[in-house]
Amino acid sequence: MRDLPVIQPGRGAGKSAAAPIFDKIGIVGLGLIGGSIALRARELWPTALVIAVDNKDVLETAMRLHAVDVAADDLVVLAEADVVVLSAPVKQNVARLAELDEYVRTPAVVTDTGSTKREIATAAKSLPPRFTFVGGHPLAGAARGGLEHARPDLFVNRPWLLTQGSERLESFIRALGAEPKVLGVETHDRLLAYLSHLPQLTASALMTVVGDAAGADGLALAGRGLADTTRLASSPADIWKDIAATNADEIGRALDALIGLLQDLRNDLANGERLDEVFTEAARWRELLKR
Amino acid sequence: MRDLPVIQPGRGAGKSAAAPIFDKIGIVGLGLIGGSIALRARELWPTALVIAVDNKDVLETAMRLHAVDVAADDLVVLAEADVVVLSAPVKQNVARLAELDEYVRTPAVVTDTGSTKREIATAAKSLPPRFTFVGGHPLAGAARGGLEHARPDLFVNRPWLLTQGSERLESFIRALGAEPKVLGVETHDRLLAYLSHLPQLTASALMTVVGDAAGADGLALAGRGLADTTRLASSPADIWKDIAATNADEIGRALDALIGLLQDLRNDLANGERLDEVFTEAARWRELLKR
Repeated sequence: MRDLPVIQPGRGAGKSAAAPIFDKIGIVGLGLIGGSIALRARELWPTALVIAVDNKDVLETAMRLHAVDVAADDLVVLAEADVVVLSAPVKQNVARLAELDEYVRTPAVVTDTGSTKREIATAAKSLPPRFTFVGGHPLAGAARGGLEHARPDLFVNRPWLLTQGSERLESFIRALGAEPKVLGVETHDRLLAYLSHLPQLTASALMTVVGDAAGADGLALAGRGLADTTRLASSPADIWKDIAATNADEIGRALDALIGLLQDLRNDLANGERLDEVFTEAARWRELLKR
Repeated sequence: MRDLPVIQPGRGAGKSAAAPIFDKIGIVGLGLIGGSIALRARELWPTALVIAVDNKDVLETAMRLHAVDVAADDLVVLAEADVVVLSAPVKQNVARLAELDEYVRTPAVVTDTGSTKREIATAAKSLPPRFTFVGGHPLAGAARGGLEHARPDLFVNRPWLLTQGSERLESFIRALGAEPKVLGVETHDRLLAYLSHLPQLTASALMTVVGDAAGADGLALAGRGLADTTRLASSPADIWKDIAATNADEIGRALDALIGLLQDLRNDLANGERLDEVFTEAARWRELLKR
């Protein structure tokens, strides 16, 4: 199932070109994140080659959106890449990582954009020494995933976590508009279990419970509160299956804490002392979040 | 602690006045909801008198905002009201309801705007026959409560639940911009436990768990997902203590359902079959909600 790479001509003509940080940018998995990286990289560096690997349906969209220079459904197009960004769901990234040695002939920086870092960091220890692996996680998202929602400005002013310092990768990330921050692998997975994974599971569980009880007629009466609280419930199951599986211990502990607190509230509804404490503390923490 | 009523002059001069549905509109509790009713009523009916009862701090704000015509911290100003809207927290509404006989001399429609309906509907059975009680619940809110966030357009196109039909009250509600819908007392409390009370408790519990684990430094990395999911966590504890206490059985059942589902997800993180089902169902329900 190898395709000939397709080269899109005529891009960036007449633009003043910044010197690219990487000349051949390989992106494996062209969803919201990978697609947004591709779109911004093409804006920034007309002389760099943006090379994407995904399935044919996605590649068709990529061509239509002029998101990439080279597109194929096979890693063979990455032979000369000097950076490889793995942007598929976590377990696919781990699987692709193991194949890089076979396809990428040049020394390259290898990074990923997955929401958990321990599993891929462990897998990366088996890469041959011509590769430099630095785990990455852009904290940018949108209610809807997929290439069709990708935007070149997705990362502007958003943190982009890295598992270790890397001057070249940090320059690349800054050029995309994000703010690189170094966070160790273990710390990352623990913190993100709370900041991202727990809210996601909670929003999906809440939406299911409310939908099942209220039905479509009941939901027609719902206001902005329920809509806000469940906005994440549109997230795709496949991405989250991988995140949950690769951070099960930390997410488990976070879920235990939430379940315990919900149980406390439940046992004290009539009296409301615990509710008073929790609401007061919650409002104080909520002040620290941007709207 | 009786104050002389204060009359604000000069309002509505030059406006073409619609015939008011009620001539003397009493509002007890001038928060987000009561304040928004007052502001819109004054816009609509220059010849009607908007009479508010609250504590002195709130009345000062009301005067500054020109939200009411008559303001006092005592029910005595309601003597001639032809509608009384109880807009304080639920338990205060129940307490005020019991005092109406003493202060309101005229036949009047009595309604409330509380988020639970069984307790006040039961209390209303003791009202003398010159009063007509119809429970009400405008499904309009904002992330922040209080009179300072009140707006005359708060109710536009929002449902306003009534525990029984009432032609005059429905006209009043339509004039405020809302859509009256009749829903029995029991059905109301069961449905709202899911549409509103469960999301509120969940958002507050989630914010507390995440804040306690991540701390201020961790929260600085949080994105829009957490911010959306916890937007309700700014809600005031006092209002919610009353709601929880007056709908404890229904909220308890809703919490049990959510806790059970979170436990299911927790027990299957590594495998993810249950997660797949829940996310797929959640995304389907979420499609039915407005953004």
